[in-house]
Amino acid sequence: MKALVYHGAGKKSWEEKPKPVVIDPTDAVVRILKTTICGTDLHIMKGDVPTVTDGRIIGHEGVGIIEDTGSAVSNFKKGDHVLISCITSCGKCEYCKRSMYSHCTTGGWILGNLIDGTQAEFVRIPYADNSLYPIPAGADEEALVMLSDILPTGFECGVLNGQVKPGDTIAIVGAGPIGLATLLTAQFYSPSEIIMIDQDDNRLNIAKTFGATHIINSGRENAVETVMKQTNGRGVDVSIEAVGVPATFELCTAIIAPGGHVANIGVHGKSVTLHLETLWSRNITITTRLVDTFSTPMLFKNVQSHKLDPNKLITHHFKLAQIVEAYNTFGNAANEKALKVILTNE
Amino acid sequence: MKALVYHGAGKKSWEEKPKPVVIDPTDAVVRILKTTICGTDLHIMKGDVPTVTDGRIIGHEGVGIIEDTGSAVSNFKKGDHVLISCITSCGKCEYCKRSMYSHCTTGGWILGNLIDGTQAEFVRIPYADNSLYPIPAGADEEALVMLSDILPTGFECGVLNGQVKPGDTIAIVGAGPIGLATLLTAQFYSPSEIIMIDQDDNRLNIAKTFGATHIINSGRENAVETVMKQTNGRGVDVSIEAVGVPATFELCTAIIAPGGHVANIGVHGKSVTLHLETLWSRNITITTRLVDTFSTPMLFKNVQSHKLDPNKLITHHFKLAQIVEAYNTFGNAANEKALKVILTNE
Amino acid sequence: MKALVYHGAGKKSWEEKPKPVVIDPTDAVVRILKTTICGTDLHIMKGDVPTVTDGRIIGHEGVGIIEDTGSAVSNFKKGDHVLISCITSCGKCEYCKRSMYSHCTTGGWILGNLIDGTQAEFVRIPYADNSLYPIPAGADEEALVMLSDILPTGFECGVLNGQVKPGDTIAIVGAGPIGLATLLTAQFYSPSEIIMIDQDDNRLNIAKTFGATHIINSGRENAVETVMKQTNGRGVDVSIEAVGVPATFELCTAIIAPGGHVANIGVHGKSVTLHLETLWSRNITITTRLVDTFSTPMLFKNVQSHKLDPNKLITHHFKLAQIVEAYNTFGNAANEKALKVILTNE
Amino acid sequence: MKALVYHGAGKKSWEEKPKPVVIDPTDAVVRILKTTICGTDLHIMKGDVPTVTDGRIIGHEGVGIIEDTGSAVSNFKKGDHVLISCITSCGKCEYCKRSMYSHCTTGGWILGNLIDGTQAEFVRIPYADNSLYPIPAGADEEALVMLSDILPTGFECGVLNGQVKPGDTIAIVGAGPIGLATLLTAQFYSPSEIIMIDQDDNRLNIAKTFGATHIINSGRENAVETVMKQTNGRGVDVSIEAVGVPATFELCTAIIAPGGHVANIGVHGKSVTLHLETLWSRNITITTRLVDTFSTPMLFKNVQSHKLDPNKLITHHFKLAQIVEAYNTFGNAANEKALKVILTNE
Repeated sequence: MKALVYHGAGKKSWEEKPKPVVIDPTDAVVRILKTTICGTDLHIMKGDVPTVTDGRIIGHEGVGIIEDTGSAVSNFKKGDHVLISCITSCGKCEYCKRSMYSHCTTGGWILGNLIDGTQAEFVRIPYADNSLYPIPAGADEEALVMLSDILPTGFECGVLNGQVKPGDTIAIVGAGPIGLATLLTAQFYSPSEIIMIDQDDNRLNIAKTFGATHIINSGRENAVETVMKQTNGRGVDVSIEAVGVPATFELCTAIIAPGGHVANIGVHGKSVTLHLETLWSRNITITTRLVDTFSTPMLFKNVQSHKLDPNKLITHHFKLAQIVEAYNTFGNAANEKALKVILTNE
Repeated sequence: MKALVYHGAGKKSWEEKPKPVVIDPTDAVVRILKTTICGTDLHIMKGDVPTVTDGRIIGHEGVGIIEDTGSAVSNFKKGDHVLISCITSCGKCEYCKRSMYSHCTTGGWILGNLIDGTQAEFVRIPYADNSLYPIPAGADEEALVMLSDILPTGFECGVLNGQVKPGDTIAIVGAGPIGLATLLTAQFYSPSEIIMIDQDDNRLNIAKTFGATHIINSGRENAVETVMKQTNGRGVDVSIEAVGVPATFELCTAIIAPGGHVANIGVHGKSVTLHLETLWSRNITITTRLVDTFSTPMLFKNVQSHKLDPNKLITHHFKLAQIVEAYNTFGNAANEKALKVILTNE
Repeated sequence: MKALVYHGAGKKSWEEKPKPVVIDPTDAVVRILKTTICGTDLHIMKGDVPTVTDGRIIGHEGVGIIEDTGSAVSNFKKGDHVLISCITSCGKCEYCKRSMYSHCTTGGWILGNLIDGTQAEFVRIPYADNSLYPIPAGADEEALVMLSDILPTGFECGVLNGQVKPGDTIAIVGAGPIGLATLLTAQFYSPSEIIMIDQDDNRLNIAKTFGATHIINSGRENAVETVMKQTNGRGVDVSIEAVGVPATFELCTAIIAPGGHVANIGVHGKSVTLHLETLWSRNITITTRLVDTFSTPMLFKNVQSHKLDPNKLITHHFKLAQIVEAYNTFGNAANEKALKVILTNE
Repeated sequence: MKALVYHGAGKKSWEEKPKPVVIDPTDAVVRILKTTICGTDLHIMKGDVPTVTDGRIIGHEGVGIIEDTGSAVSNFKKGDHVLISCITSCGKCEYCKRSMYSHCTTGGWILGNLIDGTQAEFVRIPYADNSLYPIPAGADEEALVMLSDILPTGFECGVLNGQVKPGDTIAIVGAGPIGLATLLTAQFYSPSEIIMIDQDDNRLNIAKTFGATHIINSGRENAVETVMKQTNGRGVDVSIEAVGVPATFELCTAIIAPGGHVANIGVHGKSVTLHLETLWSRNITITTRLVDTFSTPMLFKNVQSHKLDPNKLITHHFKLAQIVEAYNTFGNAANEKALKVILTNE
């Protein structure tokens, strides 16, 4: 089969690889129908993720069709359409029993990282019963690709950890795909005001059409001052970091009201400064999280009942065989006005 | 009346001041029976708390007898014995309605800070109905002085914010009065293991008699390594910072297990480094809090039912008029083996 | 002044009564601008509420203007426009400190019950700072009358106690004003499906326009069978009782899924049968609640930000002096297609 | 092998049955070391549990040694000592993912009910990785038998569902093994007062030694009156039903304070009367639950750290081959002063 293979920093190729087979009784092999590229994949390609080694097939998102199953798989059979979770869960370790699948002792984020991933014609999925979700006939499979990672990430790490409540004033820092996924799912809890902060006017304008009530271009305005003015000096109930650099995290802690929640989503490469000399007495909560994807079934229901439209996040389409071109587009997102790309295995 | 008055950094005196009177209809004037000195008072005396100005009577803890009440006070009358909360609460602002009395818009920590405090023969208590608690006849009033600040602080900022649960392994960094108050109240939730970390062997030994299951002298051992070894490399479910310096906060974040809670109690004067480059994916929660004292009635019940013995925290007794001497003892706590001192107004 | 006075079962009159005055320092006197009639008022008029005695002015909802305040009132001054809560809260008893204002030891539901109420030109409001909410200039005061009782009741007793979550399938039994208020506020939490059950086609059709995804006329269909069929035999995650008779409560417990929540809102006059012989093993939660109105500020924000439109619930308008006629209309709600009536004091 | 077999109401025998074998890849076969008899087994023997049919091996508690495992079992291998949960969990259905193992779509309470159980020399355990717990060398295996059912049942259905908190006043109705297990585990949350209600003086006296602060013999006293007097007319914060008949459930709802929690544990054979005509406005919560056993690992830790001593519940010992005699003793518990019996497979 063909697959996108990482060959060290800056090197990748669409090349022939052996088709995966069932190894463990809990495995399934899935033929990919549609996949996408994640911001994390760009980091991998730069060589920033040392766990990914030469020869690895990249990718941790997608929908597909069951091709084969191990003897202990009972939820799926050949021919079933499935949604692939970016997180692999054994369902039986201490962390899985706490629904903290991200820290599964033999799973977690391993697809396209420690084992071969989904940017390929086929992929082996360990613990298939716990790591795949059935797709009913007639569902919108492109929309569902957004449920592999980006929507549960925005929802769990941002909205749930931030404890967004009806009536809240919230700020989301970063209007990329993850920030926008957070914006869409934050509205499940009816905050009164949603302030979106970014430096890209195109993305801020998209945010407005997605439900943001205020936008701030932090490249042109002092975001702290603007937020404090909009909230009468009180700050926001929830601030959500969806970038992954010190400045945006520190912004989140500068605009938080007493009793508020700062929810970090961003993947950080450096430490940040935490101003405990002012924050110690402000009764705030800061959270970090690698997505657990425990909310995927709920998000799926809300896609099916039209409370959530993930298609809004898709800007570009390619054939899977054009994946190198797709990487170029996605890697140049600001100029291409790209959010998420869909790759179809035809 | 006589009172302990702050006269700028390093200067205090026990001197004559006018006896306070009822100003607002919700005020009470209380004759102090017993009071104590807080670590915060030592900071004030060093000039570290800029909101405290020359002429201020210090102190925010104590028990006393109602001397006079305003026309709107209905819970108390002259002669009632009362416990004074370190936090003043109006009961009617946004924050008080959320039980976040620490941020009461016209109260919070004002006693011995923005208004005159309890290290005096009399004190005026605003919003008396919400800021005082009735003491029944026969109660142990010395023990109750520990409920003005130290026990709700350890319990709310440490135990509740840390979400200590039955079966947990927890670490408390700092075995001073606050850390020990945390240790006592953490046991309300039956953690399996309580690791106490400090550099003072005397305090660590006291911690053992108070229920610590392990002690670590971080002056002699590498605390991170010892904790990780004791927890089989997993870390603790809850780590509680009860010192207030960067090193102890960073220790708390270095030993936390995935999914764990870091609860800050310490009053910090400097920013700290938060290692988001490792913590972003560890699903942790960090909290800060100025005590709200909403738990005081519950703690009071547990003192009355002998589930909690605050007397353990009292090491020294003085007459109120000897308060300057008491400051010397308390300010030299390690040598004096002092935890909390009781000052009695005779 | 003029007021609607109860004179025993079946007897009421619009008559002259003394204008109320400030009695306690925490009181305010409010001139009524707009008020309404509650289903509970109809029960009172039938003689079903023994705490209401001859001579009582009825009514516990409304907006008005501050006419006078006691010496301890600090949140309001003469001329301020205010929303009146149906629940009076002292802010300082055990229950108020737990935000359970409904059980305030000297307040709770006393307006138009134990003390004179709002169906009058003026009303005295005890504990004004805790029981009134400021109305900013330009707000829609008719809409806000719905926040005195009906919207917090549907939200707190139904939606919050039922723990409605994104993705849930919920059923609301009863499409009267309270059931419809529940329907509006349930959508703050984005349930996937909302099944509305009643015997009145007009109200069910209104429910559809308010966001119900399915309607069942239980006068014509077997509601249990229909719900179980719609949920593939699983039952609903949340069932909310908004009528107050045994049959509707028992319906709620018959359609609940394992792990589900049954939230009772209805005022019951009789005991009900609880089928513990089947329910004991189904991991369900049943709640009851007299509204606390702690959520009023949040609902107010959502009205101001246009997430909630209470005007939908208003079907009829009268002058306050026409209140006896308004009672006739509201008491004949099915034929008059009445939901809530607004009475304006001109 | 030998096993205790049910042959219809009133008929059981210790007889030869085929030794179980691995059927599914997730199965394990366990050689029983120690087992016990549950009150539910007595119900089965009376013919009250229609799902149990002629020929079924009874029993759902025990510890043993792994004899054989299916190909997908990864947590255990031959020779491992294991604790058997009374609840079988697949780890991958909707309910298991919510930690509601009691309602596992292919598991739940099936042992000694829908499939052969543990009162035998060997037992087949489906979904072994999720339904067994490893026992470290040196652990007290008799004590651990109490963790198969009785301790998680008291803890989850009673203590957790009742939301017992520090400072609470709670009542437990029924001082049999389940009520006493509730009493032991309620103390994990440090309630101030624990009132134990039963009609058996022996069990009430045991309750006192287990930590009850008050005992009431409801055969001699009016329990409602006594509780209301002890609580100054307020009622208890939590009442826990551990019997399973209408009178005890109704007692629990009669003594509950406003805002309180009624937690049902008992297995009921009849419906009960719920007095909504008074309870509708009292803001109470009523829960039911079949134990999920999700708390077993936590309870295990608290046994290992000596916070919980299940041996207190064991009053009698038999050889497994003497099980018919053990049934006679356990079935005559009041006269025999029996709580739990241990059956050892020698």
